[in-house]
Amino acid sequence: MEKIARINMGAAGGPEVTVTEVGEYAGLGGRAMTSIIIATEVHPLAHPLGAENKLVIAPGMLSGTAGAMTGRLSVGCKSPLTGTIKESNAGGQAAQVMARLGYAAVILEGKPTTDDLYKIHINKDGITITVDNSLRLMDNYPVIAKLRGEYGDKVAYMTIGSAGERKLLTASIACTDPELRPTRHCGRGGVGAVMGAKGIKAIILDDAGLKMRPPKDPERYRDANRKFVEGLRKHPVTGEGLPAYGTNILTNILNEAGGYPTRNFKSGVYEGGSKLSGEAQAELEIKRGGKATHGCHRGCVIQCSGIYNDAQGNYVTKQPEYETVWSHGGHCGIDDLDTVARLDYLDDNIGVDTIDMGVAIGVAMDAGVIPFGDKEGAIRLVEEVGKGTPLGRILGCGAAITGKVFGVERVPVVKDQALPAYDPRPIQGIGVTYATTTQGADHTAGYAIATNILKVGGDVDPLKTEGQVELSRNLQIATAAIDSTGMCLFIAFAIMDQPETFQALLDMLGSFYGITMTGDDVVALGKKVLSAERDFNKRAGFTAAHDRLPRFFYTEAIEPHNQVFGITDEELDSVFNW
Amino acid sequence: MEKIARINMGAAGGPEVTVTEVGEYAGLGGRAMTSIIIATEVHPLAHPLGAENKLVIAPGMLSGTAGAMTGRLSVGCKSPLTGTIKESNAGGQAAQVMARLGYAAVILEGKPTTDDLYKIHINKDGITITVDNSLRLMDNYPVIAKLRGEYGDKVAYMTIGSAGERKLLTASIACTDPELRPTRHCGRGGVGAVMGAKGIKAIILDDAGLKMRPPKDPERYRDANRKFVEGLRKHPVTGEGLPAYGTNILTNILNEAGGYPTRNFKSGVYEGGSKLSGEAQAELEIKRGGKATHGCHRGCVIQCSGIYNDAQGNYVTKQPEYETVWSHGGHCGIDDLDTVARLDYLDDNIGVDTIDMGVAIGVAMDAGVIPFGDKEGAIRLVEEVGKGTPLGRILGCGAAITGKVFGVERVPVVKDQALPAYDPRPIQGIGVTYATTTQGADHTAGYAIATNILKVGGDVDPLKTEGQVELSRNLQIATAAIDSTGMCLFIAFAIMDQPETFQALLDMLGSFYGITMTGDDVVALGKKVLSAERDFNKRAGFTAAHDRLPRFFYTEAIEPHNQVFGITDEELDSVFNW
Repeated sequence: MEKIARINMGAAGGPEVTVTEVGEYAGLGGRAMTSIIIATEVHPLAHPLGAENKLVIAPGMLSGTAGAMTGRLSVGCKSPLTGTIKESNAGGQAAQVMARLGYAAVILEGKPTTDDLYKIHINKDGITITVDNSLRLMDNYPVIAKLRGEYGDKVAYMTIGSAGERKLLTASIACTDPELRPTRHCGRGGVGAVMGAKGIKAIILDDAGLKMRPPKDPERYRDANRKFVEGLRKHPVTGEGLPAYGTNILTNILNEAGGYPTRNFKSGVYEGGSKLSGEAQAELEIKRGGKATHGCHRGCVIQCSGIYNDAQGNYVTKQPEYETVWSHGGHCGIDDLDTVARLDYLDDNIGVDTIDMGVAIGVAMDAGVIPFGDKEGAIRLVEEVGKGTPLGRILGCGAAITGKVFGVERVPVVKDQALPAYDPRPIQGIGVTYATTTQGADHTAGYAIATNILKVGGDVDPLKTEGQVELSRNLQIATAAIDSTGMCLFIAFAIMDQPETFQALLDMLGSFYGITMTGDDVVALGKKVLSAERDFNKRAGFTAAHDRLPRFFYTEAIEPHNQVFGITDEELDSVFNW
Repeated sequence: MEKIARINMGAAGGPEVTVTEVGEYAGLGGRAMTSIIIATEVHPLAHPLGAENKLVIAPGMLSGTAGAMTGRLSVGCKSPLTGTIKESNAGGQAAQVMARLGYAAVILEGKPTTDDLYKIHINKDGITITVDNSLRLMDNYPVIAKLRGEYGDKVAYMTIGSAGERKLLTASIACTDPELRPTRHCGRGGVGAVMGAKGIKAIILDDAGLKMRPPKDPERYRDANRKFVEGLRKHPVTGEGLPAYGTNILTNILNEAGGYPTRNFKSGVYEGGSKLSGEAQAELEIKRGGKATHGCHRGCVIQCSGIYNDAQGNYVTKQPEYETVWSHGGHCGIDDLDTVARLDYLDDNIGVDTIDMGVAIGVAMDAGVIPFGDKEGAIRLVEEVGKGTPLGRILGCGAAITGKVFGVERVPVVKDQALPAYDPRPIQGIGVTYATTTQGADHTAGYAIATNILKVGGDVDPLKTEGQVELSRNLQIATAAIDSTGMCLFIAFAIMDQPETFQALLDMLGSFYGITMTGDDVVALGKKVLSAERDFNKRAGFTAAHDRLPRFFYTEAIEPHNQVFGITDEELDSVFNW
């Protein structure tokens, strides 16, 4: 990863590639790379779809190595959805392949002068950009099918569906999994719209003839990796819960905790929860010949993904994640896994964020567009997104726009990004993260559920305000660092509880780069990333007033715990006082 | 105007009226009243459609008196369109009648607990609120026709059309003119959506049995008013241009100055301008038996409004204002006055802001929804707004939402409110106002066109950056004061050029209230209003970064003057350094 490729889509004679040494950005990876480049190079008031915005694609610090769990790819830009800086990461194969190709970052710049659609092919011989208007308005599954005919099966694909071409504010970038399904998405914040605005439909990454990235100290790296994997395998979340049931193990847990937002955040308990649970889902998957245990990228030892088949045993979609099952399920009053799976497939195919898409449907239901619980209606709405009808465009622009266009007051967004599957009133810690993260409402930015609900990394009472700011602060710092390593965030469960597993991670980083890496270094990296992001957001006009939940969380108590969000403004404003 | 009425629409047993003395708000009027109440009483992060927002309706300080030009009514709230504080004012009869009824402000508060639609009747005996669901989704002309059958012709009506009920972000509040046409709109910022969210369809104001408000010094007031009227009659703008041609006298002037934004701000000259001009319009109006000279409220001596008939001599709409002719005309590449008049009627009937509506159509044209110049298409689009289709809702939410939903980069808005009919690149002074006003892009907030183009109040070269900040600052201060008096802003032309006319205005205020009123007092009032507004906006999260034009004004030069907006950020940030 000694190179940076810049592709200027606005060059006079057509796209122009410049490859340089990594230079001032040396040593960065993943979110640190994307956020520091965006904060350094993009005008904070740039139009997200304009020539001044950039789309930075960066593998993590350990991506492309033999280390376990190192397959996360970060994509960064100024977000069309939130107006903030944005980092959205995904699994799949792309990070490993791009890292082996030697690119610490591929940066898409400028704005095309024609409306041609391009694909970018990157292999050991270099970067080729070609017009391919035959792909126009194709969705992700058919695009991949077509590209496989051309580039084969030994490559990784990054594509946008019709949503990205239409520049919808929730458009995602799909990364293919090991079986070349476009199921792992950089979902949040409309990164796919920025790729669409750059005129790029697909990036094909081919590492044929290239090897794993070599560590400075191979033996120590191998040893550290072995201990790291042991740690993941022995922790109950990463070694048992996630492999057996995937992230959807959370449905029953959150529902029992009274923190499962139901019918657009009107209750914390969903009566149909058990029908959507990970336990029910895994049983169905196995019965139908799908898979309840599967890795989204090679090198994964947690294996929290899966394959969801229909009753006839035909592939429908990958195992929908907990947040997807929630956003299309309980949030919409829908208790049917087959409907959720169909919606998940449609989202992946069209290329939209499953959280903002599902939350938008629930907001539209609250507006009376269709009733809560209308399964066929929900499918029809997402199909409209794929057709690009006016209604589809509204919904595809997410919950905030849907709320405005339909005159809804109860719109669960922060910085115009939809809240995920955890109500911040009975789980105050996650509310601190939603309100204050640089990304707009995002559970992954500081997953307080771990300590509030799962009792990982300690035990902070979710119903109380005490300790939540510190919890969210520490998690946000740790997450910013982990998102820079290329490691899947789920390693956090093990490293929070097991000091020896955290030490193994430090040893992996240290032995790979030939440095000494301490816990303090990780904290410093996380703070560096957050500081760059907050500085960008500040220059883009974001203030403490934006680090708040929507007012209804402060004024409407929710069943069953009957409480409102209680963290004061002063407390929220202290999250980044370190 | 010794009373304030508060109507709590969210009271448990239905709407609840409380009338108190004016108290702490004594002496305020118009914009000073609405903005200071909103800044004092509304949570800055309130949802604009929620119970925490308030809609304040206030006549000006001199409304309801025998003074000329005192018929402006201010409406204030937190804006659903901009998120800022909002004051939107209109002519028509409402201000005079409400003032004579003795109300310094009527404040709509809370949120109804049912979806009933209410009308509010106010006369000398008090305030009566009744459910009238028969009015549901009726537009303004039919609503007025129905209400006239019930309340007669000797009252003033304030109503919302279907857009307000649907809570579209550009929904207006219509005030009837002397002939009871719903043609004078508090247009900007979605104030009609807030009235809709309060469940109120119509306010009927009846001053039967009440007299003009008496001045403290009647003789001096009469004398000052006489001199004031003389001043207006002798100034070329208020005495000749506006009466003869209305505001649309500006089409030829702006087109000749190269400052007429054409086809979504792609050129400063429109080849079809002369066909849209005030001169052509007045000729047509007279020929068809309409009126080129008409007053929008009793007591108006400028008479800049008019009546636009079709070729058969039937009423179509009031004389469309310059900004309306532009937004539906040159901005959309449409050079046909009959089409513009039809669109103006539709806007008034449905109840949407003609500026944001027209700009949204042009942005949709830029997105390819319909081609530039498509007259029938433009009419069809506005009809969709009236039907509340998804496309209509998008457009009815204004240019900013339309741009987002259709993935358009060139969206001429500041704080999500559409720029009016003056390009800020060849007319730098108006750009300072657009960028920095508390209201989102708004020409009336500091009408630099006066001095940049019309050479009223001095002569500041529109193409240069020198002097523009000072010009906009002084105009914004003066405007905030004038908007508080109840005076039509067009008096500014005469008082800027004629010291004796300004003195007459001071004497009117002084003799009415029995005080001494100086120029410094006017400046102090203006600053007080702006300070309250800016304080609210700051608490709502607005910063210097929001006091900017969209990036394309800084990067794309425009014909014929080939220049970009050149006022620096530092200069913009100095506007309110006084």
